[in-house]
Amino acid sequence: MSPSEPLGLSWLAQHRPRLDRAVRACRERAYWSPFQESPSRRHWGETARADGEAAYRALLGRPFALDQPGEVAQVGTETSPWTGELLGVTYPRAEPSRLLDAAEVAWAPWRRATPAERVGICLEMLERLAADTFLNTYATMHTAGQPFLMAFAGSGANSLDRGLEALAMAWVAMEQVPARATFERSFGRGAPVRLEKRYRLVPRGIALVMACGSYPAWNAWPAVFANLATGNPVVLKPHPDTILPVALGVRTLRATLADAGHDPNLVTLAVDTWEAPVAQHFLDDHRVAIVDFTGGQRFGRWLETHARQQVYTETAGCNAVVLESATDLDAVLRAVAHSLCSFSGQMCTTAQNLWLPAEGVRDGERLVPVSEVVRRLVDAVDAWLAEPVQAKAVAGALHSAATLALLEELTAQCDVRGEVVRRSGPLAEAGPARTATPLIARLPADARDLYGQEHFGPVGLIMVAADRDEALRCAARDAGELGSIASYAYTTDPAFAEQVDDHFARAGASVGINLVRQLPINYAAAYSDVHVTGLNPAGTASLTDLAFVARRFAVVQSKTELPA
Amino acid sequence: MSPSEPLGLSWLAQHRPRLDRAVRACRERAYWSPFQESPSRRHWGETARADGEAAYRALLGRPFALDQPGEVAQVGTETSPWTGELLGVTYPRAEPSRLLDAAEVAWAPWRRATPAERVGICLEMLERLAADTFLNTYATMHTAGQPFLMAFAGSGANSLDRGLEALAMAWVAMEQVPARATFERSFGRGAPVRLEKRYRLVPRGIALVMACGSYPAWNAWPAVFANLATGNPVVLKPHPDTILPVALGVRTLRATLADAGHDPNLVTLAVDTWEAPVAQHFLDDHRVAIVDFTGGQRFGRWLETHARQQVYTETAGCNAVVLESATDLDAVLRAVAHSLCSFSGQMCTTAQNLWLPAEGVRDGERLVPVSEVVRRLVDAVDAWLAEPVQAKAVAGALHSAATLALLEELTAQCDVRGEVVRRSGPLAEAGPARTATPLIARLPADARDLYGQEHFGPVGLIMVAADRDEALRCAARDAGELGSIASYAYTTDPAFAEQVDDHFARAGASVGINLVRQLPINYAAAYSDVHVTGLNPAGTASLTDLAFVARRFAVVQSKTELPA
Repeated sequence: MSPSEPLGLSWLAQHRPRLDRAVRACRERAYWSPFQESPSRRHWGETARADGEAAYRALLGRPFALDQPGEVAQVGTETSPWTGELLGVTYPRAEPSRLLDAAEVAWAPWRRATPAERVGICLEMLERLAADTFLNTYATMHTAGQPFLMAFAGSGANSLDRGLEALAMAWVAMEQVPARATFERSFGRGAPVRLEKRYRLVPRGIALVMACGSYPAWNAWPAVFANLATGNPVVLKPHPDTILPVALGVRTLRATLADAGHDPNLVTLAVDTWEAPVAQHFLDDHRVAIVDFTGGQRFGRWLETHARQQVYTETAGCNAVVLESATDLDAVLRAVAHSLCSFSGQMCTTAQNLWLPAEGVRDGERLVPVSEVVRRLVDAVDAWLAEPVQAKAVAGALHSAATLALLEELTAQCDVRGEVVRRSGPLAEAGPARTATPLIARLPADARDLYGQEHFGPVGLIMVAADRDEALRCAARDAGELGSIASYAYTTDPAFAEQVDDHFARAGASVGINLVRQLPINYAAAYSDVHVTGLNPAGTASLTDLAFVARRFAVVQSKTELPA
Repeated sequence: MSPSEPLGLSWLAQHRPRLDRAVRACRERAYWSPFQESPSRRHWGETARADGEAAYRALLGRPFALDQPGEVAQVGTETSPWTGELLGVTYPRAEPSRLLDAAEVAWAPWRRATPAERVGICLEMLERLAADTFLNTYATMHTAGQPFLMAFAGSGANSLDRGLEALAMAWVAMEQVPARATFERSFGRGAPVRLEKRYRLVPRGIALVMACGSYPAWNAWPAVFANLATGNPVVLKPHPDTILPVALGVRTLRATLADAGHDPNLVTLAVDTWEAPVAQHFLDDHRVAIVDFTGGQRFGRWLETHARQQVYTETAGCNAVVLESATDLDAVLRAVAHSLCSFSGQMCTTAQNLWLPAEGVRDGERLVPVSEVVRRLVDAVDAWLAEPVQAKAVAGALHSAATLALLEELTAQCDVRGEVVRRSGPLAEAGPARTATPLIARLPADARDLYGQEHFGPVGLIMVAADRDEALRCAARDAGELGSIASYAYTTDPAFAEQVDDHFARAGASVGINLVRQLPINYAAAYSDVHVTGLNPAGTASLTDLAFVARRFAVVQSKTELPA
């Protein structure tokens, strides 16, 4: 490295094979990951886990060190869903306009930096975030309520992969435009004219990235890296109950920027509270040009419709399972039950609405009546949760106390409108943890007011349709009209599988067919699985394609005539 | 070609070298064109021009044959700006909902067609449009008012190049996503799971493409091909005074679709009248998902702010010239005067506001006082228009009678607020043609209410700034705040040229520096020049980059677990 070369460029050289491989992965969409999803000692060494937990504990009960401008107060009331105890970590609540002032100052040299330098810095950020996986795992567990393994993969490799995927897409989009070109042609009968042309990739403005409470990193990193790579400063607003994992990330990003000779205020943390939400202050400021939002459908829809910014959302839908036939029905029900139990149904890809044909479900040669399918599904759920340690490892804790109220209210409604076949209750031996096992209920197909929305928690609603075609029609109808992020179908009939594919494609919703050995079926793979499509109300942020990155910068050109 | 292979695929094979070359041109952004910009007999044969004119004349005075559904009346009051005579061509005015019904029916197989087939059909469309260039030239002259050579290039090669450019970008964006992938990984300690993944590129919905009156093809073709290639049906709404060139294009596109075995209603013509505009009916229909608009800033801004569709606009701005120094001032003034005269200033890239430093403009060694610069600019304009045949060839006719009223009103205002140094009048020997020479006026720098908007016609407004830095600041300020599609600067000082580049980049506006031998300086080259940026109020449709195409389709995915 020459003395004057920006550090970002040498980081790019260092991480270049990873970037090129990620670009190829996005083209091929087969399996790949440069990050380690397993917390095994084999990969991380003997003390990594204990060190991570100790580092987490050292953060508790004190202000989080984050040297940001505009601090007006220290806030923070995060409570661990596992222990019920206050974390006692406080964060600087900043005056929004001061954060934006600082971002603007930081922006000038960031705009001028080359895409190569910016992408190099982003690659280094990913590397440093990966090194912090154990610490972030504990922060995620004790804010979001995730079980250990999920937090490790979800705030570690899986979300870093999604971040790298977005970075690779941004690189592809920016690489399309050369920095300079020489243009030579004749006009009319004149001698050739030569023009030196210059193309600048101009970022759009400050991006507000709003993370969600239950899965804080997975949507945030794609947005953060798509924005930073294309030259836009980022204000990261965590959910008020899940600040710590985001704050840790912000701290790492700020340190990387500083090491690279850039102003750390390119990435700031905008903490708020339930009592005094802060998002609208940013949305009302003309300097905020981009909004990336993960959260509820209501605010997401408001943003999509009314915000004057570029808006990318992931909200919610009612994910369906169409259950038609199987070669091994128990294996299918085990997979579906796992989806209901996994992190207590608090994932955007969790199955919720199960559609069965009235005649029952074919299991190999045998037609299994609906009532038996329902009973065996309940058994499968119970089996996942029978052993207390495993139950906690699968189901984790509830991110929000509101989920308990929701389960109670929904149970009451299902008791009136349909039939509750499995009541929710706490996990066995859960101690102080806030937990809930799945509520499973049968509902009539006309109770669309109940099943036609996402119930954020462990909820399985079973509807019976006249036949398989109607089951598919209803499931796909809801996906198209009400939104779906991931739906599922099980069938041994290739012709029906093709119909499933067609119906969900028309609904603009992803569908997984016969996912049995893929556990969890909820799993969405970076570089391979496409996320929300913008074709139904579940949101607009694919995370994975050129549409997610291409508008975050504009191309501005100059041309200069060269002397004859 | 196998008997069952869609014709579109063999067209793709036939035109593939052109597509690949266009993709490369977009990457390199040097000069290239597969179309013929010159009407010379050498390229087109002895009779092509006469045949084109005869074909145009044969269309006059009768209904335009266009077999579209939903016809409720025949309308059409186009009048030639050259002859003042009614063309007498009438077109089917269609019930909007009927056009959309028909587009929906046509859409189903078009959605299912592969990107390769659709792009092959689009390439063939471009080839057929090119073959029609002479006919379309006369149609453009006698509706838009363009002079012959401009109409030939502008409705021929130049707009077809922009169409091919957008098609190439759509191809690049769609090629990024594989049709299928096999995904294999282990979950936990389990045996590897194999998933067959399928990615569908799902179009967004019907696109309404609104063309402008003075330059009907240049923005329309990029929008049409970006939409068709990505699978979206197109309703083309021409300006009510410039229907014929668009109708001819629609007829060609419909015939190509029919030949390819597709429903021609994928492309329809939505004619309206001044009295009964039709755009809002389409905007209010939920089936219209995309709007491409070229026209006034007011409606463009309304669309950008309020339409619930994806919106791509090109509107207007006040393009500036910063005149600081030159090695040959007369050559510079000749180039600027040409921009004022060319098609009577009715181009989106026409120069309007000239900013001079108070000390004057350096011409080689000599500092030329402002008053002399102004006088010599007027002389340069007069020189372009001195010879009546050349004058008409450069200036053409006025598209709209409103321009005459605008010139009259603006002259009166400039008489009061500043100094009119050249009055507008008809071209010499213009006969029945509606023509106007440039109005040139000096205005004080505080008359921003007058110069701070686009005056659509031959208007040069000269403002004097304290020094060159202020001149640049004012010009770039207006570009950023009020919009600019193309601005210009002349300087012999490389340091000032660099400042020009920086200031306009910050304003998000293209700038051409020292364009002297490039005549017309207004010229924007497909595959090379970037159009509007979305960074200032001149619009959002770059026409040229991935952002223009990437959102017109979504990626919807399915995955199927393969048996162990």
